[in-house]
Amino acid sequence: MISERELIDKIKLAAGNNAGLLKGIGDDCAVFSSGADELTLVSMDTLVEGVHFDLLWHGAEDLGHKAAAVNISDIAAMGGRACYVLLSIAAPRSTSPAWLDDFMRGFLAELSQYKISLIGGDTVASRAGLSFSITILGKSSVGQVLYRSGAKVDDVIMVSGCLGDAAVGLELCRQARSGERRWADLTAAHLTPVGELPLGELLATSGLVTAMLDMSDGLATDLAHLCEASGLGAHVEAAMIPLSASARQAAHDLNLDLMQLALSGGEDYRLLFTCPEDHEQQLGELVQDSLGRQLFRIGKMVPGAGVHLYTKGDKCKIDYQGYEHFDA
Amino acid sequence: MISERELIDKIKLAAGNNAGLLKGIGDDCAVFSSGADELTLVSMDTLVEGVHFDLLWHGAEDLGHKAAAVNISDIAAMGGRACYVLLSIAAPRSTSPAWLDDFMRGFLAELSQYKISLIGGDTVASRAGLSFSITILGKSSVGQVLYRSGAKVDDVIMVSGCLGDAAVGLELCRQARSGERRWADLTAAHLTPVGELPLGELLATSGLVTAMLDMSDGLATDLAHLCEASGLGAHVEAAMIPLSASARQAAHDLNLDLMQLALSGGEDYRLLFTCPEDHEQQLGELVQDSLGRQLFRIGKMVPGAGVHLYTKGDKCKIDYQGYEHFDA
Repeated sequence: MISERELIDKIKLAAGNNAGLLKGIGDDCAVFSSGADELTLVSMDTLVEGVHFDLLWHGAEDLGHKAAAVNISDIAAMGGRACYVLLSIAAPRSTSPAWLDDFMRGFLAELSQYKISLIGGDTVASRAGLSFSITILGKSSVGQVLYRSGAKVDDVIMVSGCLGDAAVGLELCRQARSGERRWADLTAAHLTPVGELPLGELLATSGLVTAMLDMSDGLATDLAHLCEASGLGAHVEAAMIPLSASARQAAHDLNLDLMQLALSGGEDYRLLFTCPEDHEQQLGELVQDSLGRQLFRIGKMVPGAGVHLYTKGDKCKIDYQGYEHFDA
Repeated sequence: MISERELIDKIKLAAGNNAGLLKGIGDDCAVFSSGADELTLVSMDTLVEGVHFDLLWHGAEDLGHKAAAVNISDIAAMGGRACYVLLSIAAPRSTSPAWLDDFMRGFLAELSQYKISLIGGDTVASRAGLSFSITILGKSSVGQVLYRSGAKVDDVIMVSGCLGDAAVGLELCRQARSGERRWADLTAAHLTPVGELPLGELLATSGLVTAMLDMSDGLATDLAHLCEASGLGAHVEAAMIPLSASARQAAHDLNLDLMQLALSGGEDYRLLFTCPEDHEQQLGELVQDSLGRQLFRIGKMVPGAGVHLYTKGDKCKIDYQGYEHFDA
């Protein structure tokens, strides 16, 4: 079976060109100019039952929230403003109107938080299982949009929150322990993640950030993408990767390797970005003052290629340990 | 099971709003302003194996052509220029790289005819069957874009080509007769339809057309959409509906009701549009001179509601006899 990356590479080579196109395949969004200084961002995602979600534990309304949030995250990753969404639903005939109502309630509630309008889509029959394809459109401007490719040597690597929560939450769901109240934040990280929309735009407008993407596949793969796009390597300090207290506790109780989940579990939808070392403090203060949020430095960009993890002095190459969709 | 139209109505009511949005759900494309006079058009379609295509007779490369053409047709229907496409492929693990290569070859060849760039998408695993979701983006300008809602009383109703060819072609495929050379144009109408892109833009720039859409669901349903959006009814003369000689011959040989297929078979992807009666001749000459194409007048818009078909003096109501996706 062809891997997702191979297929994307193949498509990339074959893609045409078009005046006004600033970025095609290979970032969280494609970017094209529309009007004098305005840029349009666009991204598309598909979620398949049994691959990306399991109805055994994923309620319709939560799934609606998540389907929207995952796409909103792609606009956040470019530092843009999300404006419009198109939703295509493929549903088996057995799907109840009540289930679809609940899904739409969650989906639209998530959109309305950011004043995003649902402007189109499609509804089709499916032979087996639900799936959702979502296209999101956003705006940015020249000189503000952030690509994966802008990182420089010695830039610090930062993340916007704890990693591994969503992967631990998924494991709790799989073990039918999602009802335990003490793990509510972990199961929520899996069931109803939140796109970092205001933070993404703040980071982009700050002018202090050099490269950014959202963390959908786990730190190893996501950082490898940033490195590849920027033509550099990365050193990450394992001890500096932010892990939540509840994820540590749950991982201990369930006998899970939390570091492995943080590296390859995916679906945390935090922002991963780089900035010059001498801007780190200013950026941290800006984010703290504006949104009351903390940023976490986990490493730095280096010449060369590949992502290396340092654990108590040991060095280990970790690129592309993330989830490859076609191998699921 | 909820019908496609009920679900779309539900979504329409719930959809938010946004400055710059000229048209949300309810036309072939959503339309929003981008820059001073420029409009962006966007549409999304999903094609599901076993529902929208059958691999028994649909070759990979032909299917790639069709997947692109069906979406290009939505931009043509608004009178726009197609610019960018995003493609999401959900494929079972058993899908061969060679099949995907062939599909992509057809898909990209169709795009390149119109200098459309593939700028993004997604590739995911599917548990059962292939499906493709495609988003297409186009451009138009204020005062040029054509909606379904602009028809006026006494406007003539026109179509851009013969109806029913695709439905007869599908029947030939089902009966394993797609290899018969004398029916090649009919099977091609089903396997590799062509979006009316230059014609759509010509009709829009002519300033002579009042309302337009593309014919994906059959004349009965498509014209009912135009009537509903325009708040009018339509009278259609059965004898004036253009039917190709080969479709007549094949329908005779296969014992098919060609008029019924023209009304409800769908997938012809011709343009259905209205214009004031005193512009009909000028429009016909423009299209003949510019593209060497003929237009066909099939009826006129009337006060009231509903689509009525006149056959030798008999009157029959035919709205929404088309294919309802959820009932497939």
